[in-house]
Amino acid sequence: MNYSLRQGNLLEDLSRRHLDALLVTHLPNVRYLCGFTGSAGVLVVADGRCTFFTERRYREQARTEVQDARLVVPKGPVLDAVARVVADSRVKTVGLESEHMSVAEEARVARILRSKARVRQTRRLVEERRMVKEPAEVERLRAAVQLGSSLFDKAVAAIRPGMTERAVAAEIEYAGRCAGAEGMAFETIVASGLRSALPHGLASSQPIPRRGFVVLDFGVILGGYCSDMSRTVYVGKPAAQARRLYQAVRDAQQAAIEAVRPGRTVGEVDRAARAVLRRAGLARNFTHSTGHGVGLEIHEPPRIAREEQDVLRPGMVITIEPGAYVPGYGGVRIEDMVVVTTTSCEVLTPTTKEFLAIQESGPVICS
Amino acid sequence: MNYSLRQGNLLEDLSRRHLDALLVTHLPNVRYLCGFTGSAGVLVVADGRCTFFTERRYREQARTEVQDARLVVPKGPVLDAVARVVADSRVKTVGLESEHMSVAEEARVARILRSKARVRQTRRLVEERRMVKEPAEVERLRAAVQLGSSLFDKAVAAIRPGMTERAVAAEIEYAGRCAGAEGMAFETIVASGLRSALPHGLASSQPIPRRGFVVLDFGVILGGYCSDMSRTVYVGKPAAQARRLYQAVRDAQQAAIEAVRPGRTVGEVDRAARAVLRRAGLARNFTHSTGHGVGLEIHEPPRIAREEQDVLRPGMVITIEPGAYVPGYGGVRIEDMVVVTTTSCEVLTPTTKEFLAIQESGPVICS
Repeated sequence: MNYSLRQGNLLEDLSRRHLDALLVTHLPNVRYLCGFTGSAGVLVVADGRCTFFTERRYREQARTEVQDARLVVPKGPVLDAVARVVADSRVKTVGLESEHMSVAEEARVARILRSKARVRQTRRLVEERRMVKEPAEVERLRAAVQLGSSLFDKAVAAIRPGMTERAVAAEIEYAGRCAGAEGMAFETIVASGLRSALPHGLASSQPIPRRGFVVLDFGVILGGYCSDMSRTVYVGKPAAQARRLYQAVRDAQQAAIEAVRPGRTVGEVDRAARAVLRRAGLARNFTHSTGHGVGLEIHEPPRIAREEQDVLRPGMVITIEPGAYVPGYGGVRIEDMVVVTTTSCEVLTPTTKEFLAIQESGPVICS
Repeated sequence: MNYSLRQGNLLEDLSRRHLDALLVTHLPNVRYLCGFTGSAGVLVVADGRCTFFTERRYREQARTEVQDARLVVPKGPVLDAVARVVADSRVKTVGLESEHMSVAEEARVARILRSKARVRQTRRLVEERRMVKEPAEVERLRAAVQLGSSLFDKAVAAIRPGMTERAVAAEIEYAGRCAGAEGMAFETIVASGLRSALPHGLASSQPIPRRGFVVLDFGVILGGYCSDMSRTVYVGKPAAQARRLYQAVRDAQQAAIEAVRPGRTVGEVDRAARAVLRRAGLARNFTHSTGHGVGLEIHEPPRIAREEQDVLRPGMVITIEPGAYVPGYGGVRIEDMVVVTTTSCEVLTPTTKEFLAIQESGPVICS
């Protein structure tokens, strides 16, 4: 990754906003700008260069990982040291990442800076740059997606009535680790039977029922980048109602994918999915947004939601994941990751979206 | 769990601080006070009662989980709805959780409240109560620790030279899931050979060497509560230097455990470990604090660190985890969870702290 290019872009952004410095406290932004992967540290961008402050326990790791930034390991709290350095510099206006600094931290910084520098809140400065992925990032995301997708096949092979949702999660996660994943990108969702109507049904101790939906939603981290996919299968033989629900969500997902192209707003993509579900009488059953950006974080800008105005650009990587949830019956969600191309989008997730029914003989396609 | 008792305690705390209301934005605090386990929501404590605000996607889950609080699912952003309700109430002084609200969120709340209520920063209000565990919480922690401890045995049985650190993590995590864990409490650390000198060496693609330390640090979540343990084993036959390093850390850990008793400060416990390592010439090699509270969160107050003043009380559950890290050679960490009793402490972690060497024939104790 070309850290000095990224830092250069950020310096331009700062200069355009008349900021002399930025305190980068959001760790994924820190990683993006200088390569540090640990859990404590602040990157100070000022005077055209970067200084990374971390705790003693990360000294060795920072020495190995941090690129294109000076390393400082202060004796006391990192944020105090950062504020003192800014106070003693020629910096007059310093930006904070307002979404990634707590009120308590801001008070601490302000107390040390006093009148020596003015604090300005910033929002999404580094995230705006991160939204458009570099080709090397798309390749990492593609590799993560492919690994993630291979786990779905393991899950389908494992699922049978009576095993717990957590045992299904165990198979997915074990296969991920064995294939080299750094970890899961978020808590694995395995929501079966009536629980499939919960959009965020984390794998529980409930046994997979003899008949009903199973929503699987999971992702891995590989090379620092996250994957995210959902598929919904049916255990047993689905009746017409289940097929209709599945087909409506599948159509909505396809409509949203077809709506993705550079120049469109994310709101238009969301509305494309919503329109299909509305026509199927499921408007009120689609209770979340259509998707989100994915990269170093599992959820990052843009949000693919009705009211959002972000414009799609080539290189953005987002999820498309409409769902429909019927309390007391069940739910369906289908999710792919796509990368925006110069003309439309490429679906990264290779897994089939046919309606799979898991029967005693194995999985069969219901069409 | 007795949520109404917990809410009653908080109301007393608010009244003592002349606060009419508190916006609880830290999700573990929300869970502690009303039982909600999802990832989005705010609990408003005001006028002697609690109201929980969440997003549409969590409506069903909140209906099932939330106890002793009214449920509100607003149309727009949750925090805006919360601020509007406070603005329209008789509340004059509202507390924020300053460590768990971003500068951007605070600005949003303040914009809606304007002059209708005064905002006051609070710190650790709910966390102070959470530090002392109820008997039912200690039992959950004990169960989590026992599950975690059983995974160490699986790891020892699995480790052999040439397998990757990640493959070791895979065995630990799979066994955890199969035993019913809701997930891991944090990213599993498997740091072998020279990497054992990294206090936070996440399991990597590096193969376990033929000779050297392997630091294992992991935990599970069970019943919502976290476990945390570290052990360091040696692959091959350890030379005298390795034995000395191990013994020094083991002695330091024992000294810290013996320093735990009600009325002592956490700083005294930290200094007890540090004194042993200093006498062994390893003062500069112990680069982190001695431990931390554990409960619904893997890291919660108190921090067991030199400069901290928190006084130990019966029912607190903390880790004791000194380590020594020699760059270019290797490192050792030994960690138990302990519960403070009325006279001293009980070590919850049942795993042996003998120095285990993993040889071709299997693990042997080096004493």
